[in-house]
Amino acid sequence: MRLTLTDILDLEKPFRTNLINCLTGFKSPHLIGTKSKSGEPNLGLYTQVMHVGANPPLLGVLFRPPVVPRHTLQNIIETREFTINLVGKSILEPAHWTSAKWDENEFEAVSLTEQYIEGTYAPFVAQSLVKMGMTFKERHVIQTNQTVLVVGQIRELIIEDGLIEADGFLNLEKVEMLTMLGLDSYHTTDSLKRMEYAKIDRFPKPLK
Amino acid sequence: MRLTLTDILDLEKPFRTNLINCLTGFKSPHLIGTKSKSGEPNLGLYTQVMHVGANPPLLGVLFRPPVVPRHTLQNIIETREFTINLVGKSILEPAHWTSAKWDENEFEAVSLTEQYIEGTYAPFVAQSLVKMGMTFKERHVIQTNQTVLVVGQIRELIIEDGLIEADGFLNLEKVEMLTMLGLDSYHTTDSLKRMEYAKIDRFPKPLK
Repeated sequence: MRLTLTDILDLEKPFRTNLINCLTGFKSPHLIGTKSKSGEPNLGLYTQVMHVGANPPLLGVLFRPPVVPRHTLQNIIETREFTINLVGKSILEPAHWTSAKWDENEFEAVSLTEQYIEGTYAPFVAQSLVKMGMTFKERHVIQTNQTVLVVGQIRELIIEDGLIEADGFLNLEKVEMLTMLGLDSYHTTDSLKRMEYAKIDRFPKPLK
Repeated sequence: MRLTLTDILDLEKPFRTNLINCLTGFKSPHLIGTKSKSGEPNLGLYTQVMHVGANPPLLGVLFRPPVVPRHTLQNIIETREFTINLVGKSILEPAHWTSAKWDENEFEAVSLTEQYIEGTYAPFVAQSLVKMGMTFKERHVIQTNQTVLVVGQIRELIIEDGLIEADGFLNLEKVEMLTMLGLDSYHTTDSLKRMEYAKIDRFPKPLK
């Protein structure tokens, strides 16, 4: 099936939204925790968190255009702090529920637990097994549609004991960390293999 | 286990690279096809492809700093065209192999097939079941580490017949589309459920 840009723009909105959101394939849900300057905690589910660099350790988050108030984005800019918390199968429903239009503190609304660590302002999600404390570094506005890319530096990592393997790999499958497709489909994973570093002189093999 | 920024910077490089690359959780591998101005095709494996918007349909790709020649990035800037091709289990090895340091055309080197469609300059991967023809829109340089974000608009979509469901959702699990963790770990997925749109007045349920 072939669809041109004109065909895509002619689709009914919900159909187009589902389709285009599936095109990048599987991605991970992340809970982003912030606290406003006045002390109100906020928690939101995001699926556009990306690796920006390992040294220094940097992650990026893409936010939808701020045409309505975006508390998470505003809190990050104002306090320069946020947390990113991975989402496992055991908290699928409360994590998804944070995306409803809550006026109140989402932690309380969905029964997830705020966790504060010495020297941090933004709340972590106690139930998450991999948590990152982030410092805001820079932002970029995508001119084509006013989407906002925020880049942050990892200030600290809190990882469940036993999860980090000998070479630094995190076995997230073992703890049923989720992957997502489109706007609403949640999946666990089945490991096929880890592949060796690719070289031109031989067909790549699984890592021993 | 708690690691501060100082702890992270003190880690051995390969260990840190593996660890930091796992922190964003599962993400999808994508093959990006381009052709240089002089007509040389190029194919590379990327894991930082993101949804930027559905209307107009926009995707982003994050490229490592161009400290060595980055043919894909250079071709995109010079020709304003690229393709993004999803990677299924059946092409895991050749897709991974494109990441070796090839001097020659990666399509020929790894035995994937260039596909050209009327009116397009950049090659698609014939074996991929979901292919996007992209037009370059803008780029942003992340100041902290010189990473480059490229935003492109979908000009056309080529999707295997039968893959698009009635509401626009793409059942990528059915065709064993891959998800990745870290630099080298490939996985298929197990669907848990699609969730209904979250509302504040009730605990979210699976979509009917």
